[in-house]
Amino acid sequence: MFDGFEDLDLFGVVGTLGKLKDVYELNYYSLNGGEITSNQQAIIVTQPFTVIDSTGILVIPGGQATRQLVNRSEWIASLKKYCEKASFVLTVCTGSALLAKTGLIDGKPATSNKRAFDWVVSTNEKVLWQRKARWVVADKYYTSSGVAAGMDMALGFVANQHGKEIAKKIADSIEYIWNDKSDEDLFVGE
Amino acid sequence: MFDGFEDLDLFGVVGTLGKLKDVYELNYYSLNGGEITSNQQAIIVTQPFTVIDSTGILVIPGGQATRQLVNRSEWIASLKKYCEKASFVLTVCTGSALLAKTGLIDGKPATSNKRAFDWVVSTNEKVLWQRKARWVVADKYYTSSGVAAGMDMALGFVANQHGKEIAKKIADSIEYIWNDKSDEDLFVGE
Repeated sequence: MFDGFEDLDLFGVVGTLGKLKDVYELNYYSLNGGEITSNQQAIIVTQPFTVIDSTGILVIPGGQATRQLVNRSEWIASLKKYCEKASFVLTVCTGSALLAKTGLIDGKPATSNKRAFDWVVSTNEKVLWQRKARWVVADKYYTSSGVAAGMDMALGFVANQHGKEIAKKIADSIEYIWNDKSDEDLFVGE
Repeated sequence: MFDGFEDLDLFGVVGTLGKLKDVYELNYYSLNGGEITSNQQAIIVTQPFTVIDSTGILVIPGGQATRQLVNRSEWIASLKKYCEKASFVLTVCTGSALLAKTGLIDGKPATSNKRAFDWVVSTNEKVLWQRKARWVVADKYYTSSGVAAGMDMALGFVANQHGKEIAKKIADSIEYIWNDKSDEDLFVGE
């Protein structure tokens, strides 16, 4: 978490993975812990990065604030450490720019928000950026397009880890019409 | 707002209406004001119901907590007062049970989450509950089906107030595939 993160980026993923209550526990982290304020003024009480459970799934939302964060080298260095430790890293929207800045997806395919795509590409041109993609999987790294695409990616993650039936059940329970094809992207031409 | 509200119910709508920054300002309210904690532990600092701007759009999310709230008569009585004042009332998921309890939609059509539908109907059988609906408009009252349906309803509201082109633009900006037909409901048979 970081001040100014986009609420829907986060809660789209949390509202999906959070349905697997017996499997996953939700914890919030930020560089130094403490209160983080979202773009829409929600306050999240976080633990510091240092106590992140390395067996976990690290979810990185996007938001306008990523434009400044990519230049905070201490923040990125710390993020890198915990991305390396995490079992999986899932980014939504411009969250992929933060992941790209760590260097961990150099030479790997990834995607991001179509409206911010050129800027995201400029943060690290060694990443194999895929403009036409709802979400992209590269080893343990999942990156999604803008905001709502994060829900499709999270369901894709559930499908890969727990089977497509479970993913479909979650989508049904939140009455979400899952766009289950990662390479079908209606927004690339916008 | 109320303790235990469902994050995605709220932020789906806020992430949509919030794109009209020049038109709408976001404010959070609860019965007595103060800190409200969501189902996913987000903290929202709220103002008391008494200072609600009566020209506003009142958004009521759902969540498990609505099961208790429908029985808190003081809360419902206060909600009723501000629903009457508001220009529009938008409910997501089981938020429609709270609105139904006020009596303000007696004799009017409304919908709710398909998984909680029978319970919602039982809270007030004078409402003309529509099981097959993504969302329903009755005068100033908009009610939506479960969670993600709230985004479709919010975009439907934008379309009615500002035109379909603006609604489509917002959907595109958050890369959300808008299900723009209020009577098309893929989840009714679940």
